[in-house]
Amino acid sequence: MPSYQQVALVGVGLLGGSIGLALKERGLAAEVIGVGRHREKLDRAVEQGILDRHSTDLATGVAEAEVVVVCTPVDVAAETIALAAQQAPAGCLVTDVASTKGTVVAAVEAILAKGGSNATFVGSHPLAGDHRSGADFSRADLFAGRTVVVTPTDSTSTEATVRAEAFWESLGATVERLSPDQHDAALAITSHLPHLVASALATSTPETIRSLVATGWLDTTRVAAADAALWRQIFSSNRSQVLAALDRYREHLEVLRRALVDEDDAQLEQLLAEGKRIRDAVGN
Amino acid sequence: MPSYQQVALVGVGLLGGSIGLALKERGLAAEVIGVGRHREKLDRAVEQGILDRHSTDLATGVAEAEVVVVCTPVDVAAETIALAAQQAPAGCLVTDVASTKGTVVAAVEAILAKGGSNATFVGSHPLAGDHRSGADFSRADLFAGRTVVVTPTDSTSTEATVRAEAFWESLGATVERLSPDQHDAALAITSHLPHLVASALATSTPETIRSLVATGWLDTTRVAAADAALWRQIFSSNRSQVLAALDRYREHLEVLRRALVDEDDAQLEQLLAEGKRIRDAVGN
Repeated sequence: MPSYQQVALVGVGLLGGSIGLALKERGLAAEVIGVGRHREKLDRAVEQGILDRHSTDLATGVAEAEVVVVCTPVDVAAETIALAAQQAPAGCLVTDVASTKGTVVAAVEAILAKGGSNATFVGSHPLAGDHRSGADFSRADLFAGRTVVVTPTDSTSTEATVRAEAFWESLGATVERLSPDQHDAALAITSHLPHLVASALATSTPETIRSLVATGWLDTTRVAAADAALWRQIFSSNRSQVLAALDRYREHLEVLRRALVDEDDAQLEQLLAEGKRIRDAVGN
Repeated sequence: MPSYQQVALVGVGLLGGSIGLALKERGLAAEVIGVGRHREKLDRAVEQGILDRHSTDLATGVAEAEVVVVCTPVDVAAETIALAAQQAPAGCLVTDVASTKGTVVAAVEAILAKGGSNATFVGSHPLAGDHRSGADFSRADLFAGRTVVVTPTDSTSTEATVRAEAFWESLGATVERLSPDQHDAALAITSHLPHLVASALATSTPETIRSLVATGWLDTTRVAAADAALWRQIFSSNRSQVLAALDRYREHLEVLRRALVDEDDAQLEQLLAEGKRIRDAVGN
């Protein structure tokens, strides 16, 4: 017996598509409805087994949903979540996948505090993805073994938080509970900073020597291939935390540079060994 | 019919082991001899089909070789190459796999200029590897489709260069010919810098938030798991070029930082798009 009669996905890209596939493959939802702007993309998602049906109208799409997951880009996440919460039936759980939480969650709560919604909202961020975007790259196992951060605030009911956690766990994920600000400070380091680092490394490689890259360069720059507009939104919505993470990183880079300049090989090897120890501890 | 009667590999780790496997699998060498310090490791390499036989004595190992490939760590590469060239028979081609070439090639040529060798030397660097080391990770296809840089100098005969190029091409590699200094300047950017960047990113990630890393962090830091002592040798032997590459990278990072500080989202998105363009052009 499915856990949910109806789940609505607002925005059917890589993440929305993968949630749909996972819900269907695991038999968790009797019906998965997709809401989007492009009818032909939604039609394809139905053919791909991601959705049962779809609507280009948000109110229609979420009208009977038990759970709504908003999977739009960060820039429009807050208004879309608030609108979905206002159109969803009483008791519906509304959550999202936005990569930054402080700005988004605060904006949603400010709108919903004015009334007009009987649904309940709690923010989420699945630490899963790909440098490619779009529903065509969806995978039913995208969340299996991954961490999803759920970000309740003082105004979130425990019941809503527990429901959101159960939803992600049913897709195979492990859940961590953090405040929106704790989330943003951590992700600035573990996700946003790597993208800056990778992008600067890619742009600092002259075209004339690009045939001489090997595995290390390919790995270290891979995330720079992700969508530039989406990442610009992530950086803009987490600016101060990203700058703090970047400054911390530059200090670590400066210590390495000092060891090179000073020809302090013992110190250099110790720093590299510390990097190796940390990387080995995290695993692949 | 095999191309070579006998190839000697001095140092049987990941690279030496993969050369041995490739030579055997492609039927290129009638006999592959391994030279190393640890008899039990060499015995295992024979069991794994990497070597036909082995010796812990360099002079014995190379005595009848047509080609000798020195695959030791960078720190001892020059003296080992020179010793191999002195012990090898007349006409033998001696090459190596050291990751930096300027210091190594100059040191070898200085020793050999004093005489005592009838073999011929040309430096090589296969842009292939793994963040893991040791013969157990050897792969016969490690060089297939990869670039090998061959680094002749003014004192290298064209015939030796062509023979070295043919050797690597027979393992499936594509060859580029560069001077040792051109090689080191390029690799400082395409290989050594990524390691510094990855290592600093790993060490700047606090232990408390390591459960919150996702694909981007994992890719961007992967190369930091490589052997610290080997990489220290690489950095020490290419110090000035690595520092130049690092300074160039820091400028690119500073431009990104400026766009964040100035809240110049158009500029930020343009920089990220440029990183994506370059990364997409190189491929995976």
